[in-house]
Amino acid sequence: MRIVADNLHVVRPEIARALEALDPEPVQALVRRCVQAGAQAIDLNCGPLKRAPERRMTFLVEAVRDVTDLPLLLDTTNPAALAAGLSACGGQAIINGFSLEPAKLEGILPLARQYDADIVGYLLHPDSRVPHAADELMALAVALFEAYRALDLDPARLIVDPVVAPLAWPDGTRHNRAVLTLIRQLPELLGTPVRTMAGLSNLASGALPLARKIALEQAFLPMLAAAGLDLLLVNVLHGPTLATARLCTDLLAEGIFAWASA
Amino acid sequence: MRIVADNLHVVRPEIARALEALDPEPVQALVRRCVQAGAQAIDLNCGPLKRAPERRMTFLVEAVRDVTDLPLLLDTTNPAALAAGLSACGGQAIINGFSLEPAKLEGILPLARQYDADIVGYLLHPDSRVPHAADELMALAVALFEAYRALDLDPARLIVDPVVAPLAWPDGTRHNRAVLTLIRQLPELLGTPVRTMAGLSNLASGALPLARKIALEQAFLPMLAAAGLDLLLVNVLHGPTLATARLCTDLLAEGIFAWASA
Repeated sequence: MRIVADNLHVVRPEIARALEALDPEPVQALVRRCVQAGAQAIDLNCGPLKRAPERRMTFLVEAVRDVTDLPLLLDTTNPAALAAGLSACGGQAIINGFSLEPAKLEGILPLARQYDADIVGYLLHPDSRVPHAADELMALAVALFEAYRALDLDPARLIVDPVVAPLAWPDGTRHNRAVLTLIRQLPELLGTPVRTMAGLSNLASGALPLARKIALEQAFLPMLAAAGLDLLLVNVLHGPTLATARLCTDLLAEGIFAWASA
Repeated sequence: MRIVADNLHVVRPEIARALEALDPEPVQALVRRCVQAGAQAIDLNCGPLKRAPERRMTFLVEAVRDVTDLPLLLDTTNPAALAAGLSACGGQAIINGFSLEPAKLEGILPLARQYDADIVGYLLHPDSRVPHAADELMALAVALFEAYRALDLDPARLIVDPVVAPLAWPDGTRHNRAVLTLIRQLPELLGTPVRTMAGLSNLASGALPLARKIALEQAFLPMLAAAGLDLLLVNVLHGPTLATARLCTDLLAEGIFAWASA
């Protein structure tokens, strides 16, 4: 399981200001902290970038690239910003992401072919509704995979994200059980191994105390890991959550570990 | 998932002395602590009880029954002690347990019929070896179930324990991955829902620091819970482990919870 930092997010005021002012320092300071905390990839969540999308995304990619060579996920709904970011990365970034929403299928999915890039596909209904039952997620995964394959793209480049729901939602618990089932059954469902990603910070979003957020993350994370999750999108500055992620990787490893000395 | 305390164990010097002296106080003090910590059942692990097995087991059951009505698991390899304990409990205890070892099939399994009791069945080879690969566990589960059904016993009274292995064992990690698979697939494998139990304290046994033991327990427990485990045998005085168990039960619940207020 690879750890993707979700920390570089435009909802953080210092990141919003840095994007506005094209000031690399706050971005780079945060990325350095994420790398030190154990991030193995960085999600660049810059929002829709309504003004000067190409310039701002290029700035962001270059700012981050100056301090790390880790894989980057370009996380925006703006196709122009994605294209600029993919160019700035030399095509080595992951597009985050598309779904069955028509605007995403038309504006974003083709970029995966154009830039020969990995892409994240979210299991959402075409009208953006979040599904809840396991069979609904299964049907969306099949439809998403068909839309992806219709462009003759390589299944090995697709990453399916079944969208962890906030527990505060009325159907949150049921939805997240379906997420676990989806992750476990996806390879059999699609007939080919397709990677999966899940955003753990969604689980305990809202006004919960930090200790409770982290406890919930620590309890759900091993369930995701044991289901076979490939990419965990997480706040890497939640130290105990990261420690749990490392233990899960060890507990599920194929190799043999010298536990007594760890 | 129901929490079974594994604390009442003859390896504790104060419990060994209490059993020797037939002194109920240390037993009852420990049971009260377990109940307060959240135990939902108590395992009475009194060892083989080579001397005066009936008298000691009866003493133990009566000592515990004086302070709690929780379900009891009678955990000994001694059939005479089991019979005495089952009599003392009025047949309401769980036999812990049998396996494919001939002495267990002949001496212990028939007690389940005689006392109309639930019984734990361990997935061990007939020569007591611990299996490692998932297909080995599956084959043992089928053989155990057949031996159980050969006595015309009710599948609903059987509890299968696939035996969590110490991580310090060379094959411990691989074995425990197989344990998760077994728990998840058991109902389909046997064609009927059969309950499962797992002993979490085995995972990090040995000379590890307590904090590391608890961290490993907290990481593996949600994997067991998500696989569908029914009974978790655990040191209930490991507070963070118990807190994780409660979160797992909530995360996997069918109902809807008011998370924000929890």
